[in-house]
Amino acid sequence: MTADTASRGWTLHPQLERDTHAAGDLPLSRVLLIDDANYPWLLLVPRRPATVEIVDLPEAERTQLMGEISQASRVLKAITGCDKINVAALGNVVPQLHVHVIARTRSDPAWPKPVWGAVPPKDYSDAARQQLLALLRQELQLTRL
Amino acid sequence: MTADTASRGWTLHPQLERDTHAAGDLPLSRVLLIDDANYPWLLLVPRRPATVEIVDLPEAERTQLMGEISQASRVLKAITGCDKINVAALGNVVPQLHVHVIARTRSDPAWPKPVWGAVPPKDYSDAARQQLLALLRQELQLTRL
Repeated sequence: MTADTASRGWTLHPQLERDTHAAGDLPLSRVLLIDDANYPWLLLVPRRPATVEIVDLPEAERTQLMGEISQASRVLKAITGCDKINVAALGNVVPQLHVHVIARTRSDPAWPKPVWGAVPPKDYSDAARQQLLALLRQELQLTRL
Repeated sequence: MTADTASRGWTLHPQLERDTHAAGDLPLSRVLLIDDANYPWLLLVPRRPATVEIVDLPEAERTQLMGEISQASRVLKAITGCDKINVAALGNVVPQLHVHVIARTRSDPAWPKPVWGAVPPKDYSDAARQQLLALLRQELQLTRL
């Protein structure tokens, strides 16, 4: 099955679309930047329809996902100089499989707690968001949408 | 490098030891049951010293970790009949790399929020804990400690 065939029928969940800006595509996952300047916070969304759990992916794609999580972690750490990367696939609210990759620093407003629900989201300036998206596209070699 | 050599110098972080019961070992990870009857909640701890982030593991071990996460997810889902699996590597408090694999149900006391800090932990009865540990050992084919 080619990548194009495997992604047929996949569309981004509307709630993920609403809360994020698309950076571009890795071979398996769409890369989204969450609209919250409190933490540089990415979502990786495998472009596979009807996929809720990591184990719903075939083994080769789980390995690919782990590779893309690792790439995103490295790039986020290099760009931000963060103290810790948080990685999570929760999906209790939005069932479409999505993996959070979050750059945490000891001075961020939720540290050391997990970010979900900790403090209200903070707007990026347009310039700061565009700069971060441009860096992500370059360092992750993303396919533009 | 053999598995034995690679794990030399690794010891379980005391806080993880305090909060859990050891179920046994997968090829890469120690499998721990968190002492909280609110949710069947496992930790996978790769037996590798000085490992904080997933990306600190070499690529082959990241793939192995993904395999063990998948096994643990499947077994936890089969044992509990849960509605959702939550997977997370946070590590803001305990730096030793550990991956949470948590069975969530719509009726659990934190649903749909993440479990961390949501409600106080609840004790297992000795019988319930022993039964769950025995099932995990059998279904994950764990090496006994």
